[in-house]
Amino acid sequence: MKALGKKVWVIPDGYIPSEGSMSIPGHECLCIVNTGDVDAKVKLTVFFEDRDPLESDYFVVRAKRTIHAWLNRPELIGNLVIPREVPYSLVVESDQNIVVQMSRLDTRLGNMALLSVIGFPVE
Amino acid sequence: MKALGKKVWVIPDGYIPSEGSMSIPGHECLCIVNTGDVDAKVKLTVFFEDRDPLESDYFVVRAKRTIHAWLNRPELIGNLVIPREVPYSLVVESDQNIVVQMSRLDTRLGNMALLSVIGFPVE
Amino acid sequence: MKALGKKVWVIPDGYIPSEGSMSIPGHECLCIVNTGDVDAKVKLTVFFEDRDPLESDYFVVRAKRTIHAWLNRPELIGNLVIPREVPYSLVVESDQNIVVQMSRLDTRLGNMALLSVIGFPVE
Amino acid sequence: MKALGKKVWVIPDGYIPSEGSMSIPGHECLCIVNTGDVDAKVKLTVFFEDRDPLESDYFVVRAKRTIHAWLNRPELIGNLVIPREVPYSLVVESDQNIVVQMSRLDTRLGNMALLSVIGFPVE
Repeated sequence: MKALGKKVWVIPDGYIPSEGSMSIPGHECLCIVNTGDVDAKVKLTVFFEDRDPLESDYFVVRAKRTIHAWLNRPELIGNLVIPREVPYSLVVESDQNIVVQMSRLDTRLGNMALLSVIGFPVE
Repeated sequence: MKALGKKVWVIPDGYIPSEGSMSIPGHECLCIVNTGDVDAKVKLTVFFEDRDPLESDYFVVRAKRTIHAWLNRPELIGNLVIPREVPYSLVVESDQNIVVQMSRLDTRLGNMALLSVIGFPVE
Repeated sequence: MKALGKKVWVIPDGYIPSEGSMSIPGHECLCIVNTGDVDAKVKLTVFFEDRDPLESDYFVVRAKRTIHAWLNRPELIGNLVIPREVPYSLVVESDQNIVVQMSRLDTRLGNMALLSVIGFPVE
Repeated sequence: MKALGKKVWVIPDGYIPSEGSMSIPGHECLCIVNTGDVDAKVKLTVFFEDRDPLESDYFVVRAKRTIHAWLNRPELIGNLVIPREVPYSLVVESDQNIVVQMSRLDTRLGNMALLSVIGFPVE
């Protein structure tokens, strides 16, 4: 299959909730699929409310594979450290076409709440 | 009505939660509408984190009909077996224009949580 | 302001849950905004899994106004009767540009769950 | 990074729920990211069901920054007063490219429910 999607994606609403005390910790999951035959080199840039943006190292989303990376785990996203409970936005840049979705699981009030959006495709 | 939509759709965040023990089992539902006058032949491809993609058989979404297919039921989706509790992504290909949405109902923490996205339309 | 948006929108995942017994009944809400200076004549078509589509009468979304219409109330949506607990898809057609979003509030498991999507814009 | 996104965005489903009595009050959060090097002047217009639209003053989303503004706080959104528990729609206009997402946290039934959409990009 050819590489479907776009190379630049934006997600405005980032917020990693506190872990909470339930059996599934609160988290955000960045889902990227690379449907093509060539590994994708991907980089994240995080925008904050009150400080300069941060960039991750490049990391790979392999050909014909998906990643579902929890954003509180820097080792999965090019050593990018996103603090919990801080509003941010995310830009995802890739050298191959990909499709990007972000989902949040929030347990701060003692139950599971979910939200999810497919990123805004730029180009 | 003419066949509205696109022929290729991508959904990056797939994850069928465990059934749980509530009166509605946890599930993901793939919703496809074919507004046109010709039956659509549809095929799914599932991308995983650590193994090669799987393809479904072709199945039909009839003219002027919708399907709301639970993704844990292979008989509804061309005999494709998607395991529960495994991250995946989905590509939907059709020979007619369709529109695709995926929704998840998660009860793993003892309450109902929902998320839903309209797929990314490729072409 | 000019009339923003498109004239044809599709929402694949329609399902009006049972009312339940909580203080807010389960429902789906169709939100349409007409930002322009001319009233919009709008028509809905509902697609089912096992029977022919149904069309609403025309109804008006006034210039510079929004509607948030619960889909279990035919008097708000051109006398269209959508049964509860039946999977369906929705096409919204307008003679003016509009923007369309659909949200669901589900209380079947004794808590509030929400989902929402902006419709797929066709043309 | 260049300014990614569009200059006009629409969100049809606005509804600020009552605060409720939980530790996190019910709210809607408007998330805007300005990835470019120039501050963005932004204006909101709110459309109601039964009265004329309201416009905010201009406010700034700084270069290389995000805002996550609760919509019940006029001081964050150009002195725009959006009443709670009233259906509305939102148009966001900017002199620079931005990306817009809106999320709702609803606690009216004693648990947390979330929904989120990326706005409809007009131009």
